[in-house]
Amino acid sequence: MHPSPTTSPTPEALAAFAVELAQAVRPISRRWFRHPLEIESKADLSPVTIADREIEQALRQRIAERFPLHGILGEEFGLAHGEAEYVWSIDPIDGTRSFISGYPLWGTLLALLHHGAPVLGVIDVPVLNECWVGVRGLGTHLNGEPCHTGARGNLSDATLYATTPDIFDAAELAVFDALSRRVGMRRFGGDCYSYALLAAGHVDLVMEAGLQPYDYLALAPVIEGAGGVITDWQGRALTLSSGSRVLAAANPELHRQALDVIRAAPPG
Amino acid sequence: MHPSPTTSPTPEALAAFAVELAQAVRPISRRWFRHPLEIESKADLSPVTIADREIEQALRQRIAERFPLHGILGEEFGLAHGEAEYVWSIDPIDGTRSFISGYPLWGTLLALLHHGAPVLGVIDVPVLNECWVGVRGLGTHLNGEPCHTGARGNLSDATLYATTPDIFDAAELAVFDALSRRVGMRRFGGDCYSYALLAAGHVDLVMEAGLQPYDYLALAPVIEGAGGVITDWQGRALTLSSGSRVLAAANPELHRQALDVIRAAPPG
Repeated sequence: MHPSPTTSPTPEALAAFAVELAQAVRPISRRWFRHPLEIESKADLSPVTIADREIEQALRQRIAERFPLHGILGEEFGLAHGEAEYVWSIDPIDGTRSFISGYPLWGTLLALLHHGAPVLGVIDVPVLNECWVGVRGLGTHLNGEPCHTGARGNLSDATLYATTPDIFDAAELAVFDALSRRVGMRRFGGDCYSYALLAAGHVDLVMEAGLQPYDYLALAPVIEGAGGVITDWQGRALTLSSGSRVLAAANPELHRQALDVIRAAPPG
Repeated sequence: MHPSPTTSPTPEALAAFAVELAQAVRPISRRWFRHPLEIESKADLSPVTIADREIEQALRQRIAERFPLHGILGEEFGLAHGEAEYVWSIDPIDGTRSFISGYPLWGTLLALLHHGAPVLGVIDVPVLNECWVGVRGLGTHLNGEPCHTGARGNLSDATLYATTPDIFDAAELAVFDALSRRVGMRRFGGDCYSYALLAAGHVDLVMEAGLQPYDYLALAPVIEGAGGVITDWQGRALTLSSGSRVLAAANPELHRQALDVIRAAPPG
């Protein structure tokens, strides 16, 4: 609670550094996108690419140079200095399955945790030149412009996104279907891009499961800074140790309605 | 079979005109994308937008000026001169549900039919500045560069796309699931963009249902010109009167394997 000056960057400095990080690794991901990739299989069978590793290494190096006392958690190279007051989380390419099939809606995700709570999030989408940065106290900006979630407060008008029904197990799918039946439109596809669209006011709800901390930690400051709400399926704030289930809504009223449907659905 | 000179454009002239058409209407779709839209509901409940109408009107006018004897079939304004030797097909915005939720992978589709068979196709994707043009005799080009489908010839290595499982009725979904279980990866999202990715060698299979002629007619010349195969679920060539079920494959071997699975699946 009494951080030293070197470990207490201002929100403005953090926002600028986050953009700098995203810009620095765009050339790496763009170079490998739609080029032949050496694809390996990890234990969980998710594809992992050379681009993933190069991006994470570049980000780790830049973070360590600027903030040597900060911890880093990355998808590819694990956790370093997890006991630090500030810990960065890196998902070099969120949407690897999109990436390897030429589908342009993948992104690089960055989060900064302070005492375990995400206070900064970046969703960077290189192919579209779109970078969302949310910093606690500064709100959320898309390419430097403030962005805000939508005001639709009724489930029946809402657009619901999820990457694919295949992320849900059978029990989770029953709950997702229960919410799907109540909304105006449900759509699949997107990975992190669905949450970015929610932050920009285009999408009203995103409901997913099977996420890792480096998948969801970056989303929270982006969505909260834009006026939205993001929690687990029990309505609890997202932290490093949250489960894999995420519900994001454009506003508190819509979040409450969605949570009511989830709570009333068959238990999972 | 003895067309007059004014109704027999060369493949080169057609390709140039197709690009001109796509370029002409990009400002319309871009202007309305992510802006508040007046959304109506048609009898089939698919959303339709102002952009749809403005684009189709602009395209009809340009086609009529250049080829006054050609027929035109459009999603919004129906069929004119359907008896003509050449008939254009227009889907002003394929992927309206993407369009109205800020999702950038929608496109403008154009086809030219000669005696009922599609001989030219355009898939134009304004947000990404990507335009695929396939003309019989000239192959398929993406932004002016030749493009080719992939060589993967085994289902177990193949990536399969469909816009959403919600396009299938229960019987169709059983067939789709049968094919899904045999491929390396299945993904949802994309509308016309999935077929464009197949033409560019990134995606191996697309299987869909519920399509209209203006949805699928433009796809055939693009995919065939790039080396792929596209038919209905019985393996028949696509025409104005095809059913709504489409199977596209990167090469004949993969198409044959996919068709075998479809034929062996529960009848729909």
